[in-house]
Amino acid sequence: MGALIATWLMAENGAKKAIDLLNAGKPSHKALIELIKDIEDDVHYKSVGYGGLPNREGVVELDSAFMDGDDLSYGGVGALKNIKNPIEVAYLLSKEKANNFLVGQGAYEYALDKGFKPCDLLSAASKKIYEDEMSKLDDLKAYDGHDTVGCIVVDDKGKMCAGTSTSGLFLKHAGRLGDSALIGSGLYVDSAIGGASATGMGEDIMKGCLSYEVVMLMRTMSPSEACRVAVSNFSKKLEKLYGQARDISIVAMNNKGQWGAYSNIDTFSFVAAGYGEEPKVYLFKKGKDDHPFYTLATKDDIARLQALQR
Amino acid sequence: MGALIATWLMAENGAKKAIDLLNAGKPSHKALIELIKDIEDDVHYKSVGYGGLPNREGVVELDSAFMDGDDLSYGGVGALKNIKNPIEVAYLLSKEKANNFLVGQGAYEYALDKGFKPCDLLSAASKKIYEDEMSKLDDLKAYDGHDTVGCIVVDDKGKMCAGTSTSGLFLKHAGRLGDSALIGSGLYVDSAIGGASATGMGEDIMKGCLSYEVVMLMRTMSPSEACRVAVSNFSKKLEKLYGQARDISIVAMNNKGQWGAYSNIDTFSFVAAGYGEEPKVYLFKKGKDDHPFYTLATKDDIARLQALQR
Repeated sequence: MGALIATWLMAENGAKKAIDLLNAGKPSHKALIELIKDIEDDVHYKSVGYGGLPNREGVVELDSAFMDGDDLSYGGVGALKNIKNPIEVAYLLSKEKANNFLVGQGAYEYALDKGFKPCDLLSAASKKIYEDEMSKLDDLKAYDGHDTVGCIVVDDKGKMCAGTSTSGLFLKHAGRLGDSALIGSGLYVDSAIGGASATGMGEDIMKGCLSYEVVMLMRTMSPSEACRVAVSNFSKKLEKLYGQARDISIVAMNNKGQWGAYSNIDTFSFVAAGYGEEPKVYLFKKGKDDHPFYTLATKDDIARLQALQR
Repeated sequence: MGALIATWLMAENGAKKAIDLLNAGKPSHKALIELIKDIEDDVHYKSVGYGGLPNREGVVELDSAFMDGDDLSYGGVGALKNIKNPIEVAYLLSKEKANNFLVGQGAYEYALDKGFKPCDLLSAASKKIYEDEMSKLDDLKAYDGHDTVGCIVVDDKGKMCAGTSTSGLFLKHAGRLGDSALIGSGLYVDSAIGGASATGMGEDIMKGCLSYEVVMLMRTMSPSEACRVAVSNFSKKLEKLYGQARDISIVAMNNKGQWGAYSNIDTFSFVAAGYGEEPKVYLFKKGKDDHPFYTLATKDDIARLQALQR
């Protein structure tokens, strides 16, 4: 038994596998890694793992992190090339006493030392999207689909963990890190409280350390209320400072398996399962006074979202 | 006019230059960059910039970040090779709309594009320390002088900024990032409240997002009290989890120019100047009930610390 929440429709299939593992008594980190690997391995998802969209030099660079809510240990990789499952590397790094966050060539060498096999991450479809975009030299702009998978899991012992994985902004500068690999920004979890994970424009999420902020708010609020307060207030702050707030979406779960989500966009989907439930796909909508409501995605919604995603 | 606080005795000379700039009406970021560059340029400091100690492959890799407290913009570099003043690169990155945090080769290429000149960062003295340590193959251990410069400045317009610079852990894994470049962990500043910066074992500081935590505490506490609460509580949490807490020291300043510092070690020094004051070197000590007290460093103290530092 256990509970989980993860960003975006793409987490649906992995969430089913993760819940099966939890129901079979496996610990939270095994379920979380299974969920994220399912997305990393799927060539159709253009924002995570194998088949992710490349940076402006045409190279796929992946960011990922893992955090353990029991001992606050953390592992992260940034700008990692040619390794298909960065979440597994991040998990191994979280077990080291030091050197828990590795980037670039150093991260790659660590992965090889640990037995990971090099792999070309650029799929034919992603290569074509890159070449088409690069041919429009006058109107080159970063792809807006910055869809990180971010996930929080709690198992039947109350042990929580959080994880993220992404190929980052399409056409990003080589070596660019967003929020996803960064503890506090892309993810945070403390089994004494709960966990949170963010997706969206990393450069804005970082400015507010939003995952840490949501976890701290959960000391006195429900996950849903904590996500609303953090995202809504910070979006308003960015609007004042910059005239606009770029995309920010957050999911959270407390140590009782209660979950919540909030977003400043109206196309945010996520997958959640409370204790003893099957995972379901939800759509986030903003209601009166900015209060969130979550509707179960219909088959039509899912078909529409899948078309967007692939 | 302005005020500042920075970690470690090594900031003394740069702090004098920074206060001169503030007194001449220059903005906070100019003063901060001057302070940090003074340390980066000095070959004697083995933990920052030129002359920093190398990673286990014998290569100096630098981490640095800059944050603007008025608009929360942030720039960071990690595992940057062959560039002497990473704080200037971090500052330029904070002005970009996206791609604000670059690591490894991508960070280096950005610096070259902006006109920075390549430079061999390994000094003869640091090379010798590296070779000596590597020859003791049976007893290889990471150097414990992880002395990041971290600095908070407020100018006479109330504009605040924060910055960090370090060569990180001696003998670190290639590509390792500590807390210094990470927003929320190594530094955070909001001109509406104040700023904080950390030094010590980055892998532990990150687990608590300690700079963000101190800034949030300063909403209702003095800088000194905020540092004490954050460092003291988090150290106790780590002791429970791991049986020990590794080195953590934090400096903070609020937007009135009031400052504070706290550490879980008794050898922490820092440099501070309130509005209209000259910078002075202080030693941190823990008093009754964990309350901090700060004593002005005597000439003997400074001579002793300098011997340790060089």
